[in-house]
Amino acid sequence: MASGTEVRHIDAGTAIEIASAALMGAGAGPEAAGLQAAHLVEAELRGHPSHGLRRLPTLVGRMRAGLLDPNATPTLTWGSVSALVVDGNRGFGPVTAYAAIEAIQERARETGVAIAALRRTHHLGMLSPYVERLGEHGFIGIVLSSTEGLVHPWGGVGPLLGTNPLGVAVPTADGGVTLDMSTGAVSAGKILDFAERGLPLPDGWAVDEDGRATVDADAATRGAISPFGGAKGYALGLTLGAIVGVLTGTAYGPDVKGTLDETHPVTKGDIICAIDVAAFGQRPGSTELASYLELIRASGTDGRRVTVPGDRSRAARAHAVADGFDVLDDLWLGLEGLADEHREAPTGVRA
Amino acid sequence: MASGTEVRHIDAGTAIEIASAALMGAGAGPEAAGLQAAHLVEAELRGHPSHGLRRLPTLVGRMRAGLLDPNATPTLTWGSVSALVVDGNRGFGPVTAYAAIEAIQERARETGVAIAALRRTHHLGMLSPYVERLGEHGFIGIVLSSTEGLVHPWGGVGPLLGTNPLGVAVPTADGGVTLDMSTGAVSAGKILDFAERGLPLPDGWAVDEDGRATVDADAATRGAISPFGGAKGYALGLTLGAIVGVLTGTAYGPDVKGTLDETHPVTKGDIICAIDVAAFGQRPGSTELASYLELIRASGTDGRRVTVPGDRSRAARAHAVADGFDVLDDLWLGLEGLADEHREAPTGVRA
Repeated sequence: MASGTEVRHIDAGTAIEIASAALMGAGAGPEAAGLQAAHLVEAELRGHPSHGLRRLPTLVGRMRAGLLDPNATPTLTWGSVSALVVDGNRGFGPVTAYAAIEAIQERARETGVAIAALRRTHHLGMLSPYVERLGEHGFIGIVLSSTEGLVHPWGGVGPLLGTNPLGVAVPTADGGVTLDMSTGAVSAGKILDFAERGLPLPDGWAVDEDGRATVDADAATRGAISPFGGAKGYALGLTLGAIVGVLTGTAYGPDVKGTLDETHPVTKGDIICAIDVAAFGQRPGSTELASYLELIRASGTDGRRVTVPGDRSRAARAHAVADGFDVLDDLWLGLEGLADEHREAPTGVRA
Repeated sequence: MASGTEVRHIDAGTAIEIASAALMGAGAGPEAAGLQAAHLVEAELRGHPSHGLRRLPTLVGRMRAGLLDPNATPTLTWGSVSALVVDGNRGFGPVTAYAAIEAIQERARETGVAIAALRRTHHLGMLSPYVERLGEHGFIGIVLSSTEGLVHPWGGVGPLLGTNPLGVAVPTADGGVTLDMSTGAVSAGKILDFAERGLPLPDGWAVDEDGRATVDADAATRGAISPFGGAKGYALGLTLGAIVGVLTGTAYGPDVKGTLDETHPVTKGDIICAIDVAAFGQRPGSTELASYLELIRASGTDGRRVTVPGDRSRAARAHAVADGFDVLDDLWLGLEGLADEHREAPTGVRA
């Protein structure tokens, strides 16, 4: 097995401990470090390592460059009774997002709906834990984020659109729907992975720097990811990015920086929305929706079960909580190195 | 040219007059008839005849069957300060939707956000005019509708999902973004059109009744439309339908009736959301967004312009307002027949 592809098996508790220590080694207080670490590990548990521990070294790099203040407290300002303006003050994404969620949950219980517009906060990571938190409290939860330009316009050249993901939870008593999807055909990480392995890309994933469809992963890294679903996916991604940009006053497409680099202030934005189902005279945890989802699940060809958005992630999580998960050896050694710096620091606090 | 494909050229004013008269012939008052007629013609002007005048005979059929009350006044009830519950009382979609829009606009000006959940109202038709109305007043406008089951789950058999469309307007000074898309790969009307012409379907549009991909348009009419964008489009459409169902207490997928038939009470739902950009401390009519959209438009391969969602519809509308549009002869003759019934009715009011 080539160097860089060896893995080790880790349990969630150990992963959170080491990730927390690694963040504390770069100056984060224990509470903020714990929240950020747990959110990264949550992505690993759900089978989405692209949003997991491999994001940690960039966060540490940004802390060391003075771009990320790990101990920032977000500033929350109500612009109207249902409109919350959130300045993350350059803090961790999960710290800002959970502070916003707590505020809009309480408000939406009174008003029916509340929306938070977040700026100057770092990468939120996976969106599903946030919307599921809202779902657990009887809300429909919706999160939109803008991201670095990686996706080309339909018919256009260059990475002018973010992968602009959308997260939605519509709760039922037994879980309901959790959508967490980007509007790119594939993640940038997956294209890099194919390039490293020297494998051709499937059709429809990417274009080269002249905007021509390509299966050459190297050419794709110099080009752009295709939107999922052609013209419609392009239109959706552009629109979601526009909503985020207009409500947060943050940047668009090529001007979005600060979640993949260690050199630029963060200029992306996020929207979090809580809708109280009860305010519309409906019961949260709809049994009608639960029955409908079962009908969908049972509709598979050849007797296979169809997955409803969220099913796969829930199953992966249950398995990984019980049995642990694999982490690339190099990544893990790097995290341990960062954690050791914390342990050895004279003013450090043990995780 | 085969019978049924001949067209005649109509101007918007004449179309609205004849369509209004046709609705009045079946009992609609002039105001409701005018609003419904103008909304159908608006779809023709924007180049979307699938949501245009061809929908009128079904509305008339439903009026005659006592399923649609053309003179209903919607009941508006605030469940919370930002949550409006709307019972359309079986009235026309545009009548209910514009009443809801007026109420949530006024409310969102105070609260920052307001959402209306609509039930027992007829087909809203094209969504873009509603969201653009909100956009003209400085709001981000969002509309979701559930529809009859026509789309199959990804990996599943049968038309268990609606085409569940999404409309969004994000205004700029010169128009901005207007998204109006269904989550099906194609409309049911287009598949019927291919079936009538005996043409094979493009790949990816539909499956047969066993859930197998097909290019046979006849087999597709007995099967289901595919979601756009594969698994992601399926997930999106299912999620949008779940939001609508949970907030309105209306039906899901195969239980949705009443916009294509003349025999069932209407059981679909709609959500309309107004977000006041100013409540988030941002200026409506963002110049930053306008500049970004120009960057996108200029990114076309081989010097072509890329269209931003809404561009094509705006251009079609400008052209059709000036020059008129084509209507199928048979459809037009049918409308004239319905309008004549109105003109000849002793108690009729001339349009």
